[in-house]
Amino acid sequence: MKSTIASILSSPNLHQDYNVYGWVKAFRSNRFIALNDGSTIKNLQCVVDFENFDKSLLDQITIGSAIKIFGVLKESEGKGQSVEIEVSKVEVLGLADTDEVKKTILQPKRHSLEKLREQAHLRVRTNTFGAIMRIRAKLSYAVHDYFNSNGFFYVNTPIITGSDAEGAGEMFKVTNLNLKDTPKTTSGDINFKEDFFGKETNLTVSGQLEAETYALGLGNVYTFGPTFRAENSNTSRHLAEFWMIEPEMAFCDLDGNMDLAEDFIKHVLSYITEHCQDDLEFLEQRLLQEEKSKPEKDRSPMPLREKLDFVINNQFKRVSYTEAIDILKNSKPNKKKKFDYVIEEWGADLQSEHERFLVEKHFKCPVILFDYPAKIKAFYMRLNDDQKTVRAMDILFPGIGEIVGGSQREERFDVLKSKMEELNVDQDELWWYLETRKFGTCVHSGFGLGFERLVLFATGMGNIRDVIPYPRTPQNADF
Amino acid sequence: MKSTIASILSSPNLHQDYNVYGWVKAFRSNRFIALNDGSTIKNLQCVVDFENFDKSLLDQITIGSAIKIFGVLKESEGKGQSVEIEVSKVEVLGLADTDEVKKTILQPKRHSLEKLREQAHLRVRTNTFGAIMRIRAKLSYAVHDYFNSNGFFYVNTPIITGSDAEGAGEMFKVTNLNLKDTPKTTSGDINFKEDFFGKETNLTVSGQLEAETYALGLGNVYTFGPTFRAENSNTSRHLAEFWMIEPEMAFCDLDGNMDLAEDFIKHVLSYITEHCQDDLEFLEQRLLQEEKSKPEKDRSPMPLREKLDFVINNQFKRVSYTEAIDILKNSKPNKKKKFDYVIEEWGADLQSEHERFLVEKHFKCPVILFDYPAKIKAFYMRLNDDQKTVRAMDILFPGIGEIVGGSQREERFDVLKSKMEELNVDQDELWWYLETRKFGTCVHSGFGLGFERLVLFATGMGNIRDVIPYPRTPQNADF
Repeated sequence: MKSTIASILSSPNLHQDYNVYGWVKAFRSNRFIALNDGSTIKNLQCVVDFENFDKSLLDQITIGSAIKIFGVLKESEGKGQSVEIEVSKVEVLGLADTDEVKKTILQPKRHSLEKLREQAHLRVRTNTFGAIMRIRAKLSYAVHDYFNSNGFFYVNTPIITGSDAEGAGEMFKVTNLNLKDTPKTTSGDINFKEDFFGKETNLTVSGQLEAETYALGLGNVYTFGPTFRAENSNTSRHLAEFWMIEPEMAFCDLDGNMDLAEDFIKHVLSYITEHCQDDLEFLEQRLLQEEKSKPEKDRSPMPLREKLDFVINNQFKRVSYTEAIDILKNSKPNKKKKFDYVIEEWGADLQSEHERFLVEKHFKCPVILFDYPAKIKAFYMRLNDDQKTVRAMDILFPGIGEIVGGSQREERFDVLKSKMEELNVDQDELWWYLETRKFGTCVHSGFGLGFERLVLFATGMGNIRDVIPYPRTPQNADF
Repeated sequence: MKSTIASILSSPNLHQDYNVYGWVKAFRSNRFIALNDGSTIKNLQCVVDFENFDKSLLDQITIGSAIKIFGVLKESEGKGQSVEIEVSKVEVLGLADTDEVKKTILQPKRHSLEKLREQAHLRVRTNTFGAIMRIRAKLSYAVHDYFNSNGFFYVNTPIITGSDAEGAGEMFKVTNLNLKDTPKTTSGDINFKEDFFGKETNLTVSGQLEAETYALGLGNVYTFGPTFRAENSNTSRHLAEFWMIEPEMAFCDLDGNMDLAEDFIKHVLSYITEHCQDDLEFLEQRLLQEEKSKPEKDRSPMPLREKLDFVINNQFKRVSYTEAIDILKNSKPNKKKKFDYVIEEWGADLQSEHERFLVEKHFKCPVILFDYPAKIKAFYMRLNDDQKTVRAMDILFPGIGEIVGGSQREERFDVLKSKMEELNVDQDELWWYLETRKFGTCVHSGFGLGFERLVLFATGMGNIRDVIPYPRTPQNADF
C-alpha cells in the first residue's frame, strides 16, 4: 500500500506493511532516515538495520535523495516520534549528489530568505517554505469553502481587459504587435486595430466591475484570481502580480459588507488554526528564534498562534473616518509632529503610519474604518446623504496594514453618471457598467482582499515575496 | 429574516414571515409575481392582493425591476410550485423601464446566443446563463474540493512569465514600454532592460513547469488559473484566455496519472449532477428544444443528464496510439478517403476528425490515448524504452474532443538535457527546470484540463464563448 506520510502519521496502522516515497531529510548513524514527502512538515523515521544492507546502497541515502521505503510500521522507542518504519527494503529513485547539494539551499543549514528567493525552484523543499505553501493552499481552500457554503457563486472575471478605467492603479499592456515596428495610424498613434483584440488591452487591476454585473444576476458572487499593478513599488508589501478575492453581494449595504468581511476573515484563519497546526507551530518557533536577535520593541507582541486566536476571537473595531481623524489629530505623534504627514484637517488621506498608529498603538486590534471623504475614494462608491462622504470601508491589520478595501456601490444611475463625468471616467468604455443601473438596480456591496497579505498575516512572514511561489516585482520575473 | 429563494425552497418554513429580495421575472394578472434572486433557477411565486395595493406601486412591478417583498410563506394552491409568499408589502428598489427593457435581452423572448454575447453584462440574468454560470461555479468548487480531500496542495504558478520556452503555443507580450517609441539597443533590438521586469515577458500558456518544481517538494499539487494563447483561432472550441487545471504528482507514473484524471472527471461531474439538478434539467430541456430544428443525425444521442451519467458510470477506454492508428487505418472513412487527412502510417499526428471518429463512432465513450510518438509531443515527456514513444496521454470526449493532455515527465537529467538540445529548448532560460532533476529526481506525472471544455460538456452548450462570463477571442476584448 502506497501512503503519504501525513496519512500514516494521522492514522497509523501498526504492524502493517507500507510503501513510502519521499526525500531524505537526514540520515543519522547509518541507521535513522528522516523521510519527508511534502504532505506534512513532519518526517517519518525509517530505521535501517544497516548490518544487513548493501553498503553501496546506504551510501546513496544522502540528503535530498528521493527514495522508496518498504517496511512495517512499529511503535517507536525513540524520542520525537510515536511510530517508525522498520525498513526491509530501500530503493534509491534519484540520487542527490552531496557536493552539488552543498551549493544549494537544500544543504541543511540556515540560509537567508534572500538566498532562498534566488533558488525559488528549490525553496519549497525547505521546512519554512513547505509550511508556508501548505498554509497558503489550505487558506485558498478555506476561501472557496466559505463562499460555497454561504451561497456565493465563483466567477472568473477577465484577466485581459479592454478597459483602463478601473482606476485602481497602473496597468501592464498586453499586446501581440511587433514591438520593433509598431503599426501607426495616419495621425501617428499606435494602430491597435491591428492588434490581436483590435483594441488596446491591459492586465486587469480588479475584477470588481465585472463581478458587480454578475452579482446583479446571481445575487452573491466572488472572484479569486490574479490581478496586476505596474507600479514601481519595491517594498515588502507589494507585488506586481498578486491574487485577489473579491466578493460582491446584491441587496447588501455597507454594514452587511463589514459583517461579511469580518466573518470571512475569522473563518478562514480559524480553518488553518485547525488544519495546519504542525506548520503553524513550526513557523511560530521560527519567528521566536528570529526575533531573539531583534530589539524588544521590534518583536511581535504575541506568538503567531496567539495572534491568530486573538483576531478570531475579538470583534474588529469599527471606526468612522471622522472619528479616526479626531483620534489622530489628538495623538501624541501628531502633536509632536512625529508623523511624516501631520494630520491637520478632515479630508486628509491616511498614510500607512496613521493606520499603524490606529491599529497597533491606539486600538490594538483589527480596525474597520468607514465613511471616507468622497474626494479620496473611487467613483463607484456610494455617496452618503451628507454629500461629503462615501460608504467605503478599509480593514487594517496589525503588522500588515490595509488587508481589505471595500464599499457599498453607487447604485443610482444619475448619481453614478454625474460622478463619472466629474472624475473623467470614460463612459463610452464603461457603458455596460453604467447600464446595470438601468434595469432593476439595487443596493449592493463588495470588497477586495489581497490574498498574499492574508497569507503574510497567517504565516507571520515579513516579506510578501516569501508567500507566493514565484514573486513578480520590478526587475524580477525569474522562473 | 432575509432569505435567498434557494434557501426558502429547499427548506421552507410554512407560516413564517420572510423578507425576499429579487428581480421580477413575470407579473401575471396583477396578482402573481415570479421573483428570482439568482440563487436558483426557480422563481418564487409571490401573491399580491392587488385590490389592497396602491395602483401606482403595482405599475412599477415590471419585468426586470428589483423589489423587496415582505410576506408569509404558505402552501400554494396553484400548479408549478408547492409554496408561495402571501405578500403584505412590496418595495420597489430599482425600476426597470419597460421600453428600455424591450431593447435588451432582458425582454422575455427567445434571443440568439450571438445577441446574448453582445450584452454579456446582462446575459447572466437569463435562465440559460444563470444555469450555466451556477454550474460553472459548482464545478470549480468540486475541483478544489476533490484535490483538497485527496491531499493535493493548490499552487499559484506565475501568470507573467519570463520564459517563452513552454512551447504550448503563441504567447501574448506583457510590457510597460512606451509602444510609440520603444527603446532600442545599439544593435536595433528592443531594449527590454528598460521594461518593468528588465526582460521580455509574456502571459503564461501553462503552469506545468513551475507546478513540477512544487510537486517535487510538496508531493501532490495542482494549479487552477488562467492561461493564454495568442492564436488566431476563431472556433467554437478556442479562447485566447481560458482557465486550466493542472495537477502534478510526485512518485506517480502514467497509469496513476490516467487513474487520477478519470477519477477526477467522474467526481466533479458527479458532484454537479447531485448539486445542480434544477439547472441541468433546464439546460437539458433547452437542448432538446433546440435540437428539434436539427436533422436527426446532428442531434445528441443522449439527453444531457443521461450523457453525464454515462461518463460517470462507464470506464474510459484506454487505447495506445499504435492501436488507434491501426483502427483508423482500417476504418471506413480512411479507406474511402473521407478524412481530410488520410492516415497512412504510424507517426501521423491525429486530427480532430480522427479523434471524433474514435470517440463518437468506434468506441462510443470517452477514450484515453497513450504512448504517442515522441516526435509529435513535447520535450518534457518521458521517453519509453522503445526510444520511439513517450508516456503521453490525451483524454478525448464525445462532442468536445481533447479535454485532457498529460504525461509522465522525463525525470532523467541526461535524457531531458539531450532532448532539450535536440529540440532547441533554451537551457539558459529553463536552468531551474532542468536542475530539479539533479536533487532527488523521481518519477512524476501530471495533466492539464481545459476548464471551459469541461463546462461545455457539463452544460451541453455548443460554443465555448457561452461558458465563460466575458470571453476573449480574436478582435474581441469587450467588457
